[in-house]
Amino acid sequence: MPKILDAINGPNDIKSISTKDYGRLATEIRKFLVTNISKTGGHLASNLGVVELTIALHLFMNFPEDQIVWDVGHQAYVHKLLSGRKNDFATLRQYEGMSGFPKRKESDCDAFDTGHSSTSLSAAAGLVKARDLSHKTNKVVAVIGDGALTGGMAFEALNNLGRFKSNLIIILNDNEMSIAQNVGGLSNYLGKVRTNTKYTNLKSGLETALKKIPKVGDALVTTLKQSKDSIKHLMIPGMLFEDMGITYIGPIDGHNINLMLTALHSASRVNGAVIIHTITKKGKGYDKAEKEPCKYHSVEPFDIKTGKKLNVNNALSYTDVFSRTMLDFGRESEDIVAISAAMPDGTGLTPFAKAYPERFFDVGIAEEHAVTFAAGLATKGFRPVVAIYSTFLQRAYDQIIHDVCVGNLPVVFAVDRAGIVGNDGETHQGLFDISFLSAMPGMTVIAPMNGIELEKMMAFALNHNGPVAIRYPKCAIYLDYTDAIEEVIYGKSQILESESEIALVAVGSMVETAITVREQLKEMGHEVTLVNARFVSPIDEEMLSKVANSHKVIVTLEEGIKRGGFGEAVSIFLMEHGYRDIKHINISLPNQFIEHGERAMLLDKFGLSADAITEKIKNQIG
Amino acid sequence: MPKILDAINGPNDIKSISTKDYGRLATEIRKFLVTNISKTGGHLASNLGVVELTIALHLFMNFPEDQIVWDVGHQAYVHKLLSGRKNDFATLRQYEGMSGFPKRKESDCDAFDTGHSSTSLSAAAGLVKARDLSHKTNKVVAVIGDGALTGGMAFEALNNLGRFKSNLIIILNDNEMSIAQNVGGLSNYLGKVRTNTKYTNLKSGLETALKKIPKVGDALVTTLKQSKDSIKHLMIPGMLFEDMGITYIGPIDGHNINLMLTALHSASRVNGAVIIHTITKKGKGYDKAEKEPCKYHSVEPFDIKTGKKLNVNNALSYTDVFSRTMLDFGRESEDIVAISAAMPDGTGLTPFAKAYPERFFDVGIAEEHAVTFAAGLATKGFRPVVAIYSTFLQRAYDQIIHDVCVGNLPVVFAVDRAGIVGNDGETHQGLFDISFLSAMPGMTVIAPMNGIELEKMMAFALNHNGPVAIRYPKCAIYLDYTDAIEEVIYGKSQILESESEIALVAVGSMVETAITVREQLKEMGHEVTLVNARFVSPIDEEMLSKVANSHKVIVTLEEGIKRGGFGEAVSIFLMEHGYRDIKHINISLPNQFIEHGERAMLLDKFGLSADAITEKIKNQIG
Repeated sequence: MPKILDAINGPNDIKSISTKDYGRLATEIRKFLVTNISKTGGHLASNLGVVELTIALHLFMNFPEDQIVWDVGHQAYVHKLLSGRKNDFATLRQYEGMSGFPKRKESDCDAFDTGHSSTSLSAAAGLVKARDLSHKTNKVVAVIGDGALTGGMAFEALNNLGRFKSNLIIILNDNEMSIAQNVGGLSNYLGKVRTNTKYTNLKSGLETALKKIPKVGDALVTTLKQSKDSIKHLMIPGMLFEDMGITYIGPIDGHNINLMLTALHSASRVNGAVIIHTITKKGKGYDKAEKEPCKYHSVEPFDIKTGKKLNVNNALSYTDVFSRTMLDFGRESEDIVAISAAMPDGTGLTPFAKAYPERFFDVGIAEEHAVTFAAGLATKGFRPVVAIYSTFLQRAYDQIIHDVCVGNLPVVFAVDRAGIVGNDGETHQGLFDISFLSAMPGMTVIAPMNGIELEKMMAFALNHNGPVAIRYPKCAIYLDYTDAIEEVIYGKSQILESESEIALVAVGSMVETAITVREQLKEMGHEVTLVNARFVSPIDEEMLSKVANSHKVIVTLEEGIKRGGFGEAVSIFLMEHGYRDIKHINISLPNQFIEHGERAMLLDKFGLSADAITEKIKNQIG
Repeated sequence: MPKILDAINGPNDIKSISTKDYGRLATEIRKFLVTNISKTGGHLASNLGVVELTIALHLFMNFPEDQIVWDVGHQAYVHKLLSGRKNDFATLRQYEGMSGFPKRKESDCDAFDTGHSSTSLSAAAGLVKARDLSHKTNKVVAVIGDGALTGGMAFEALNNLGRFKSNLIIILNDNEMSIAQNVGGLSNYLGKVRTNTKYTNLKSGLETALKKIPKVGDALVTTLKQSKDSIKHLMIPGMLFEDMGITYIGPIDGHNINLMLTALHSASRVNGAVIIHTITKKGKGYDKAEKEPCKYHSVEPFDIKTGKKLNVNNALSYTDVFSRTMLDFGRESEDIVAISAAMPDGTGLTPFAKAYPERFFDVGIAEEHAVTFAAGLATKGFRPVVAIYSTFLQRAYDQIIHDVCVGNLPVVFAVDRAGIVGNDGETHQGLFDISFLSAMPGMTVIAPMNGIELEKMMAFALNHNGPVAIRYPKCAIYLDYTDAIEEVIYGKSQILESESEIALVAVGSMVETAITVREQLKEMGHEVTLVNARFVSPIDEEMLSKVANSHKVIVTLEEGIKRGGFGEAVSIFLMEHGYRDIKHINISLPNQFIEHGERAMLLDKFGLSADAITEKIKNQIG
């Protein structure tokens, strides 16, 4: 029997599918996703959850005139499939292949590039205002998860949409999760609305009959006011949104295509912004992902039957070491508290959370709040550790300056995924942290070369009287030089190998690379000093003076953008202190966004592999 | 008759004041504020609005054990007065005098430093968790305006507070304004709650009597559901907060000390977070400020009787020129839209808003949303101009990178108050914009030397195919060299005076200063070239090569932090291109926070006055 999916090779092809085949189409899409993602890796559970929702949207809308903004965007696979990118799934998230996120440059069916959370409502607000000002009438839909709704900027957008007269449909894709379990008052609220099955019965049964009973008296009003929460909620699901000026429809089953279509058509008749509250199941249709949606949120290639990873990698990551270190230090000191913005698993804080639940705070997707909350704790003698990926820490730039650095508060930032992250691409690389953190007055920025040093750096940071950021990459820890690691002293680097001629001064992840570079240079007959910079900011001026006085070439190596980076700080130091005879070679990432692809490959492409670096040094020293 | 205020010379002294004198105390405080602020300048209207509210808090709390976090913080004058800082008001906002914001280093009664909006709930969340973990029982209160509540991070905090079991009292100081009129769904909602006087009557009259009527039936529930909004709101004021898990009390008159005290005592008996919704009047008690609260929000010294400024300054500011330019360009092109984050007056967008209301968007205190909303508009061919002060633009760091730069969208950022701002101090200086914006791939950063150039730069920016930030300071425009200004060409500086020996390459506001420096150097017998850099990023490499080849000294001048700034980019260029014989002197602000004080004085203190610069050049060239 020919596959339904075979008939879908371009945008709007779905409209030729007969209504009775919608169910089969959903099944085929799920199979397609599981089969493909099991080979390429990618975001699985979230996409399995939006199959019917996306089918309904593609039946309801016309592309590319109509526009969908996918919040976060990793759940846009079904949209990609239905808009004619079926054959690109083989290259999903691979270098020069299809992105795992919506990309305007990839398809005119992708209305807005996303990656970070909670941006969709703001972007969609821009799209609807642009449409109205252009006197067009196309549809605009934003799809946002209940997790993303905890991000402040989503609320800022709701607050604005509530007074717009512009038509916009917001699909609240409520799966009770962000990447981890959701948290907070809003989540509790949605939970109550969700489980209120009585409401639906009541609505369908009594609505028509009772619609015309005249306004009830004050007494009843008061009675109701005095009644339990459950009655209020029974009465007015989604009132929180209605209070903000947004029409609420729901909750409805997001896996029922016909219900979804009915809701979408109803919504399109409402003036202004409408929220359709849909209930979906993350991982739907693949039993393993349904059972463990966190585990199957983002996967590497796996065996469909067993669910097991194909390439088992038991190497300890920096995240693992951070995780264990937090557990140990948490035991030693009750002053240590840990904060995550909806990623307790990803950042490695789950063991700490289990061991010291009262000292662990998952604040939801709310990086701004996370940082200022930490600042508040720090004013009272606590030692907050805020673990946030480099790219997401950008969200809290102002809070780090304004709430932490101005007051010189001892908040520790565990900056995971610093440097090239790989398959998630432009929006997820950790390129900027060195540059932006080093420019903040009073901020200390450090980076470990191996697991032992990460541990020692955590010990240092937790005792330092001021803010400290520790950056580490998404990779396995380096296993060598573990015995060499000394205690961390403020502002001091560690010279690992002391020779002459060429000095390699490497930051964090680049020390491992520098060790290989050194071997290669030595094979060519050079004398090579190796310095583990340890401190990105402030730089170790004493070491640099010493090196500058005794070497011909200094090579700085860092996994971050060149502009405002460690290498440039070293350049400036050398220039300002009159070290004009030493040649400085700056190995860092170029001032550009970096696409998706495998980490090692991207590092090589941008000149950060050992071979590329050795080659560059060789060329420059002639 | 002795003044009541005379008896208040330290924290908690207020408790010795007799109840009957509270009214007189409020009157005396208002007189004190108006008298003092009329001499020193400062935030007037917001402080006049919180007199009774602050009296009530000081009667209710004990300092310094109990803690208040003042959102934004410019409304903390009464708190400063009541906590023993009466005599410091003569030096308010002056260099080395009392800050206009809460400062932990100024008093142990100031629990948390604020300045930017919407941080108080997060900081207070930290304080209550710290208290609970330390097994203490002190009170914590956050005071937040209805304007600040539109900032996303306040919502992030509410979402977290809603599930805390920690006691916290939130005073929602609802004066229907941020600095300008408030906007958005939340504002409409609060408006409905506020004006619902029926509710208060109903509550007080019927509550006791009807409390015990049993649960009403489904029919009534449905009827109520179908009824008008007004009934729902009648029934449940503050339900939006209750839905988030926060107990709501109010609305109550924030100018009634006894009511406030009753509400505070009630709130202190509730477990978890409580919001007390108080209605206050900005400018209360000084007729001119009551009538024009925006105008009297932040004032310079004025005559109390007439309300007129003492030092009339009719000089055009950069903001004025921006304002007029937007009006002109808005007339020429319907593609131009303008966005403000609650500061249409401050940024100069009010005339545009009046002329083209459908193309102007005040999004509330919501910088993150403002930027991504602009990005959405830009994808559809519009030319959004986002006007935000340098310090507040920090809030949207991630959105500028992620939503604007990744997609290379043509959004124009009008970065007002770039550089030293003056009397508001650390939290308000515009120090970082050059550093953080220049590190963003694809972002063009420019700065005008006078009003004509600002106009030409706006024309350039609105035609450039990518994001552009134009930074300009808080001061009068420079009036000279207006005829010299050429059209703006991407990446090109303008050489204003071409000589030899010393080249002054100045950015924006520093060109005027450089002109004086040049005169002083010429008087000493030097030959001095003068370059208006125009482009901060990318730098004009062709000009720099030319200058480097023909001069002995290059002096870069910018009003921004040194780290990652224009001067450092020039240093790096010179070093990387082998210009090792030319001496580079980098004139910029040091890598530190800069306290409050008068702009010209601070510039001189940090070496950015013409005299200081000439002196430095003289010393360095020997």
